Amino acid sequence: MSNIDKALNANRTYAKKHDRKLGAHPTPKIAVVTCMDPRLSDLPGILGLPHTDLDVIRTGGPAVTEDVLGELVVSTRVLGTTEIMLLNHTGCGFTTFTDEELNAKLIALTGDASPAPMRFFSYKEPEQNTREQMKKVRSHPWIAKEVPVRGFIFDVESGLITEVQPISQDAAA
Amino acid sequence: MSNIDKALNANRTYAKKHDRKLGAHPTPKIAVVTCMDPRLSDLPGILGLPHTDLDVIRTGGPAVTEDVLGELVVSTRVLGTTEIMLLNHTGCGFTTFTDEELNAKLIALTGDASPAPMRFFSYKEPEQNTREQMKKVRSHPWIAKEVPVRGFIFDVESGLITEVQPISQDAAA
Repeated sequence: MSNIDKALNANRTYAKKHDRKLGAHPTPKIAVVTCMDPRLSDLPGILGLPHTDLDVIRTGGPAVTEDVLGELVVSTRVLGTTEIMLLNHTGCGFTTFTDEELNAKLIALTGDASPAPMRFFSYKEPEQNTREQMKKVRSHPWIAKEVPVRGFIFDVESGLITEVQPISQDAAA
Repeated sequence: MSNIDKALNANRTYAKKHDRKLGAHPTPKIAVVTCMDPRLSDLPGILGLPHTDLDVIRTGGPAVTEDVLGELVVSTRVLGTTEIMLLNHTGCGFTTFTDEELNAKLIALTGDASPAPMRFFSYKEPEQNTREQMKKVRSHPWIAKEVPVRGFIFDVESGLITEVQPISQDAAA
């Protein structure tokens, strides 16, 4: 049986204990941007917060792209979140290749060079990545200045989250 | 205390029982694309699968953008997932506005018309949205034909997931 079919079976059991009140308009408190990596998939556990508090955007890395900025605008301006957490992690697969290398590998693997080169938003170092993300989100005119934008790194070995100081504080140090 | 600070405190407790084996290279089985909505944040519960099996991409809607296609290529070609699940849901906030309306509202709200109009990927109807997503993912040359691409809708009231048939089967009906 495929994993998707296993999930469909398990979902029938889940639905018996599903809280129907979830059908109401959600009231998330934090927007979290984190990586698609499975080691972040127990996010409510890692953060110790109710899953209903968490608007969660997950991309490779994570990358804070134009799409993500739009999602953060919706999260804070339409859905009502009041804090933004950018959660990077150690051991990220997106640090193990460059976009150029992966595009070349995919052409070699599939024999198909027809797609335009893809942007995978690979990066080299999570602290620097986090600082650039904070700056990008903080500077968007449609994200209210009252909304804190804080960056963190999740250590996949220890399970601990540590805060990354923004660029301005580095420069002052 | 802010919710982010609550999470940092709770994370110290989480780390004491964190499975250090998670530090090893992950071996996810399914790539799931779903909405950032908090009602999907208990995804391992909803799908009844171990969180370590799930590579999870979350966007508004969800929208299957160029970014998401790149992430699915990485998930299947680099990280080794063998199935793709596109999980839409009922009651989605992204059906309650058009991109044009929200851009106008943000200009009115902030008094700042300097950002270029943003793409929020609002949509009208989850079944149609799911069908278009399946077609888009299925037709990308770098996503292997052997990888099943299946679309579903999560009912936020009942907690049940139902499958959406792809466009080709509709046309044959």
